[in-house]
Amino acid sequence: MPKLIDILNGPNLNLLGEREPGIYGAGTLADVEAAARDLCEAAGADLRMRQSNHEGEIIEMIHGARADSAGIVINPGAYTHTSIAILDALNAFKGPVVEVHVSAVHKREPFRHHSFVSHRADAVIAGCGIQGYELAVRHVLSRL
Amino acid sequence: MPKLIDILNGPNLNLLGEREPGIYGAGTLADVEAAARDLCEAAGADLRMRQSNHEGEIIEMIHGARADSAGIVINPGAYTHTSIAILDALNAFKGPVVEVHVSAVHKREPFRHHSFVSHRADAVIAGCGIQGYELAVRHVLSRL
Amino acid sequence: MPKLIDILNGPNLNLLGEREPGIYGAGTLADVEAAARDLCEAAGADLRMRQSNHEGEIIEMIHGARADSAGIVINPGAYTHTSIAILDALNAFKGPVVEVHVSAVHKREPFRHHSFVSHRADAVIAGCGIQGYELAVRHVLSRL
Amino acid sequence: MPKLIDILNGPNLNLLGEREPGIYGAGTLADVEAAARDLCEAAGADLRMRQSNHEGEIIEMIHGARADSAGIVINPGAYTHTSIAILDALNAFKGPVVEVHVSAVHKREPFRHHSFVSHRADAVIAGCGIQGYELAVRHVLSRL
Amino acid sequence: MPKLIDILNGPNLNLLGEREPGIYGAGTLADVEAAARDLCEAAGADLRMRQSNHEGEIIEMIHGARADSAGIVINPGAYTHTSIAILDALNAFKGPVVEVHVSAVHKREPFRHHSFVSHRADAVIAGCGIQGYELAVRHVLSRL
Amino acid sequence: MPKLIDILNGPNLNLLGEREPGIYGAGTLADVEAAARDLCEAAGADLRMRQSNHEGEIIEMIHGARADSAGIVINPGAYTHTSIAILDALNAFKGPVVEVHVSAVHKREPFRHHSFVSHRADAVIAGCGIQGYELAVRHVLSRL
Amino acid sequence: MPKLIDILNGPNLNLLGEREPGIYGAGTLADVEAAARDLCEAAGADLRMRQSNHEGEIIEMIHGARADSAGIVINPGAYTHTSIAILDALNAFKGPVVEVHVSAVHKREPFRHHSFVSHRADAVIAGCGIQGYELAVRHVLSRL
Amino acid sequence: MPKLIDILNGPNLNLLGEREPGIYGAGTLADVEAAARDLCEAAGADLRMRQSNHEGEIIEMIHGARADSAGIVINPGAYTHTSIAILDALNAFKGPVVEVHVSAVHKREPFRHHSFVSHRADAVIAGCGIQGYELAVRHVLSRL
Amino acid sequence: MPKLIDILNGPNLNLLGEREPGIYGAGTLADVEAAARDLCEAAGADLRMRQSNHEGEIIEMIHGARADSAGIVINPGAYTHTSIAILDALNAFKGPVVEVHVSAVHKREPFRHHSFVSHRADAVIAGCGIQGYELAVRHVLSRL
Amino acid sequence: MPKLIDILNGPNLNLLGEREPGIYGAGTLADVEAAARDLCEAAGADLRMRQSNHEGEIIEMIHGARADSAGIVINPGAYTHTSIAILDALNAFKGPVVEVHVSAVHKREPFRHHSFVSHRADAVIAGCGIQGYELAVRHVLSRL
Amino acid sequence: MPKLIDILNGPNLNLLGEREPGIYGAGTLADVEAAARDLCEAAGADLRMRQSNHEGEIIEMIHGARADSAGIVINPGAYTHTSIAILDALNAFKGPVVEVHVSAVHKREPFRHHSFVSHRADAVIAGCGIQGYELAVRHVLSRL
Amino acid sequence: MPKLIDILNGPNLNLLGEREPGIYGAGTLADVEAAARDLCEAAGADLRMRQSNHEGEIIEMIHGARADSAGIVINPGAYTHTSIAILDALNAFKGPVVEVHVSAVHKREPFRHHSFVSHRADAVIAGCGIQGYELAVRHVLSRL
Repeated sequence: MPKLIDILNGPNLNLLGEREPGIYGAGTLADVEAAARDLCEAAGADLRMRQSNHEGEIIEMIHGARADSAGIVINPGAYTHTSIAILDALNAFKGPVVEVHVSAVHKREPFRHHSFVSHRADAVIAGCGIQGYELAVRHVLSRL
Repeated sequence: MPKLIDILNGPNLNLLGEREPGIYGAGTLADVEAAARDLCEAAGADLRMRQSNHEGEIIEMIHGARADSAGIVINPGAYTHTSIAILDALNAFKGPVVEVHVSAVHKREPFRHHSFVSHRADAVIAGCGIQGYELAVRHVLSRL
Repeated sequence: MPKLIDILNGPNLNLLGEREPGIYGAGTLADVEAAARDLCEAAGADLRMRQSNHEGEIIEMIHGARADSAGIVINPGAYTHTSIAILDALNAFKGPVVEVHVSAVHKREPFRHHSFVSHRADAVIAGCGIQGYELAVRHVLSRL
Repeated sequence: MPKLIDILNGPNLNLLGEREPGIYGAGTLADVEAAARDLCEAAGADLRMRQSNHEGEIIEMIHGARADSAGIVINPGAYTHTSIAILDALNAFKGPVVEVHVSAVHKREPFRHHSFVSHRADAVIAGCGIQGYELAVRHVLSRL
Repeated sequence: MPKLIDILNGPNLNLLGEREPGIYGAGTLADVEAAARDLCEAAGADLRMRQSNHEGEIIEMIHGARADSAGIVINPGAYTHTSIAILDALNAFKGPVVEVHVSAVHKREPFRHHSFVSHRADAVIAGCGIQGYELAVRHVLSRL
Repeated sequence: MPKLIDILNGPNLNLLGEREPGIYGAGTLADVEAAARDLCEAAGADLRMRQSNHEGEIIEMIHGARADSAGIVINPGAYTHTSIAILDALNAFKGPVVEVHVSAVHKREPFRHHSFVSHRADAVIAGCGIQGYELAVRHVLSRL
Repeated sequence: MPKLIDILNGPNLNLLGEREPGIYGAGTLADVEAAARDLCEAAGADLRMRQSNHEGEIIEMIHGARADSAGIVINPGAYTHTSIAILDALNAFKGPVVEVHVSAVHKREPFRHHSFVSHRADAVIAGCGIQGYELAVRHVLSRL
Repeated sequence: MPKLIDILNGPNLNLLGEREPGIYGAGTLADVEAAARDLCEAAGADLRMRQSNHEGEIIEMIHGARADSAGIVINPGAYTHTSIAILDALNAFKGPVVEVHVSAVHKREPFRHHSFVSHRADAVIAGCGIQGYELAVRHVLSRL
Repeated sequence: MPKLIDILNGPNLNLLGEREPGIYGAGTLADVEAAARDLCEAAGADLRMRQSNHEGEIIEMIHGARADSAGIVINPGAYTHTSIAILDALNAFKGPVVEVHVSAVHKREPFRHHSFVSHRADAVIAGCGIQGYELAVRHVLSRL
Repeated sequence: MPKLIDILNGPNLNLLGEREPGIYGAGTLADVEAAARDLCEAAGADLRMRQSNHEGEIIEMIHGARADSAGIVINPGAYTHTSIAILDALNAFKGPVVEVHVSAVHKREPFRHHSFVSHRADAVIAGCGIQGYELAVRHVLSRL
Repeated sequence: MPKLIDILNGPNLNLLGEREPGIYGAGTLADVEAAARDLCEAAGADLRMRQSNHEGEIIEMIHGARADSAGIVINPGAYTHTSIAILDALNAFKGPVVEVHVSAVHKREPFRHHSFVSHRADAVIAGCGIQGYELAVRHVLSRL
Repeated sequence: MPKLIDILNGPNLNLLGEREPGIYGAGTLADVEAAARDLCEAAGADLRMRQSNHEGEIIEMIHGARADSAGIVINPGAYTHTSIAILDALNAFKGPVVEVHVSAVHKREPFRHHSFVSHRADAVIAGCGIQGYELAVRHVLSRL
């Protein structure tokens, strides 16, 4: 059975490509998924991509991933900076975790400079636009 | 078609008038809605008022407002101080945003003194009791 | 005898409408006074509006208000952030106090985020432009 | 009618016994419930135990408890450290509130050292493993 | 030979029941000892309870406990917040250590929010009044 | 020629005895002056007591004191905490300086805990009510 | 029976007059006692003056004072800045408490700027040299 | 008509040359004015030099300068560190602003290290003694 | 002429693969260069890779890159956290800049959590081991 | 008469060699004393070594040393970080003072990084195990 | 022999006039040198101007200046904020030291607001563009 | 082959004995080397002593020591407080490392109180003057 890679997206990322394009660019989650799927297929892996604006749902997606997922690419959106609960859920996951940010969070407001998720993430990729997801998938694949 | 004004209420505000009346007063959300509706009608505008205890739902209400709302009055309740995700959703909204607090948050515990929503809000009104909503609606109307 | 409402304005507000209009707008103190007077008259109240660049004079205006004023609307200008003496004067005043800021002080430099006056003010209204005075007068009238 | 005791569990506690057993031990929520039910029955009280990963649901469980619950034992999980909204909900509850943490939160990362819920909780019990729930129930019963 | 449980009390606890009863309640150390002794006897253990206002004496009580004590329940009083020396003494003790506070220290002055003893304590119980000692003894017994 | 002692009073102290008597007591500046004058006369010294709400005037009173005053007792009121300019003026004065506060400033809001004037004052007396002035005059006299 | 006034002195004050005279002056505790005794006798009160280098002993002196003392003048020496236990003991004392420092602690190292004892002291007198004790006794007498 | 240069001096600078000469040197404001006038005349400009101990007067001098002044050299004295109101007044002035300090403020107490005026000043010159004014005038002239 | 990509390595990176392999892995700079060269060649670009332990040399490498380089991948090693001078040099470079860290710097000591280079870097990649360089080169190429 | 060197040991050091040997090593105070005595004898000096768990006793040992001791080597144990009273006692001692720590305190918990005793100590030696005492005695001897 | 004045320039200043001209202006180091040389010649002094991107070289330039230089004008570039070693070198230099910054560092990022060099510099001149060097040389000359 | 001990000296230490002798004493590096060489020879070890003002050179000296050195004594001078790169180089060295400071750094400016090198150093010796090197060599020899 092919390995499964999860891409999880947090709040407001359903608007990717629409909101504040000067910061987030014009690419959409559909673009992200297409590129990631190609990469996974080439590597003989499956991809599962989801988005939620609800902290609790993201926690439960991670809980579910404990059963069937080989690795997680997560863009926690604004929950990056405020959710210890998502961190705790990731702490209960065994595989590689890569944190992605579309924008260069370190050049934005100070409250975007700390990430609770980074306490668990094996790697962090920020500021590469939506290509960041592709680079993250490459890294997860390289760890499997 | 008349312009639509949104009033969004965050967690625990369904208890307005019941909980801690020494801090929040005896007026209810129904009282708020009645007064605001009168003001909007007099100005030829429509009113839509909602409340949720779920951060994700409030985010999605704001996403929805991008399509049809002329301005938002928001009392984010305790999410004022903890939700960057609601701030990000408001950042994706183009019209005027007024933040309202029923109580005088600046005279309460220090953790109530910072508002993430204020990073986006065009105006902030605090401590006017439920009249604050009415004043906020007046201000939104004046900006349209 | 009609009730008397005080509007007190702090340093640099004599330049309202002239200085940094991108931040403070084009309305002047005369505009403020005209609108507030209409509101007061409609409510059967008197209005007294003054401005001073001198901390000591503002303190003494507040001392004077203890004798004859029913409520104070105050825009302390930059003294908001530096004057404990004005706070102490207001602490000696018994009626309602509403703090007004023309600009959205919470979106400006960090040193404008703390207000000593807010330790006493019953309500705070910021970012509504000169309409903020009118909203504040409405709130003071509602408390009398 | 017997008095009702609520036990509320926050995010990730559905994994109790499975995740990070070195920190949280091997006992499950079912074990917690069994022990607590015995204690309550012996004291002639009823028990209601629930868990949710959603901040909004926990808030609403607390709202509901205002109608029929004599006391609340709450393990807010990671929301302990980030949720002012849960604190506000508890502030609207009249009976005794005991906060429980399975692990010794004070010996873990600094961001686990502050609890918003402690601003309301009558008592806090941490580091007793799942026995902490039993001790908390004993304390709630002693206050009724 | 039955196992020995130590209860150690820090400064001012000799006044328990007399001083500031609104904060500390009306129970005395004698009440604490009676209840704890019953629990220990039921579990086939011995109890040794002492109090001192001297940091050095408490350190030496802990040193002594290294020879014959199975577990320590300690209410360090105000030394909780200032004594690294007591922490170091406890670090030299091998058995379980439970820290107890009669009052809800987390709801009091900020300087009561940090505990040096918590760096070593296996568990912390605060705000349960003098019942806290009993709960702490229960927990120590459960670890033996 | 008898030595001259200055008593300088800062903002709002003209209201002493009237404002917030729970904090400041019922004694007035006239009472202060009477008691101090008796003490000075007994010691063969002259007294000059003044009050101003204007930071600049207080600075100039201190400048003037450089010519004819043997010692200064100063209650800077709220300027205690905010005025480096008064500190600088006192730095230019050669004789003894005693800082007085009627209320126990260290038990009030944190922003009243730091005094710029204390960087220069030879002694500080706080919380003795208006008797504090008398004690301060005694101390100045003892230094002459 | 005449009222009893306690003067309590903390660590290193047995060296008063010997150690660092540039900071503490040349007066000794015997000088302090003589002057204070005269004052008390004139007022028909008794004086009890003690010194200890042991935090625990100072605590116990305060406990004892609960039985027979009308007021406490305390110079806690360096324990001023580190002892919450002495504060707690004073919190259990009902009469007036005046805190004295021989040197001008506010002009010395920053760690001497905070006093735990000030959280309870009705008044604080610092920098008056050993005359400070006399002024403190005067104030205690005035409160009886 | 020749261009006009303003030199504005804040509190205590009327004592320049007299107070604390070890810090401020022996030169007086008259010396400053003489040297600056020579420089201005040589450049075909007029000089206007004033001093005030009153924050409000300095604000009003700046307001006046908006009408007729080409550039401002300002030594705000201690108001440098405490006056946002002077900063706001300068923000309303269009020409070049140079901030001067006679002493090397960065080597003095920490509270002299921050300058509100520097948020607006085009240049800052500190520690050059009264020559600093001359250098500042040279710079203002070079910008005209 | 093919475009030139720079890879710059800071202090201690000459030991990559040798020092602390548990943190930095076993790959060497030679491995990095081989992989990056392949990627560049495939994209029709040239690669220039250098390392220095000298802050000044890295600054000068960046100065040189202003003339002939299309983009910079930089692993500033420990200078990441301490060198504003390297930041300033990068600020003078016009093309894309990607910051790479072999280890997961956000999970290490707090002093490794802030990067001066991130104030300029378009993207940051951390924790991907030496694959991070490859991902960075991919991103630079995508921006050309 | 030979010169006398004092070695003073603070709380828990009576357990040296027994407690936490991974941190403090296996050497005991008796080993320390033997080595130091040899060094002192070789230099024609006397040695006096004491230990106490009581802050007050250590203060009094230092007071006593004022009469007969040429220099002090002190390992204040945990009082290093919390005792200003010991610092004050040392400030009253005229000879050389060397502070010793057996463990490398700078690599341990942050609250062990600050030493009040270092405000007075002429030298500090940390992390050399019990050899640190010997090195400290060498240094004291070199200063006599 | 004419006196020698040193002008030392730190990292990136070789790019003056080229990099970020909006911040640093269009003047070059050659322009600086020409203007400074004229001033020195007029005063009968020699000028030596150097630049280095290497902290160690700047230190050694200062060491060398101890032998033959009458005064130093230094623009430490970014090392201003990070180099204690340059401060220490300047501490070993006896003559006047003036610190120059081309840009108004106090209006830029917070990490540019602190200068280690200012702990030694007799004067600081910032924001005057390259004219700042000329003003600094004038000041050094005035001190010789 | 005899074991080799490295003594590494950071910036400005080439001036030892010349610069600020009140702080650093009159001994020179040559004195240090002579004393250390005697000690090493007596212990059958070789000594290699070097100094550099260049951070990069010190890093490379440490890299070199990985091949042939048994232990390092390092006085990093001002790089103690600013160089994470030297810390990283030392982290790659396996033998004992002792950090030496000639002056009592803990009694000097606050920015000298933190040492990055202490994160790795097995021991720290400060304030012993140049004897500190000798004591450090003794300790390194004792660990071999």
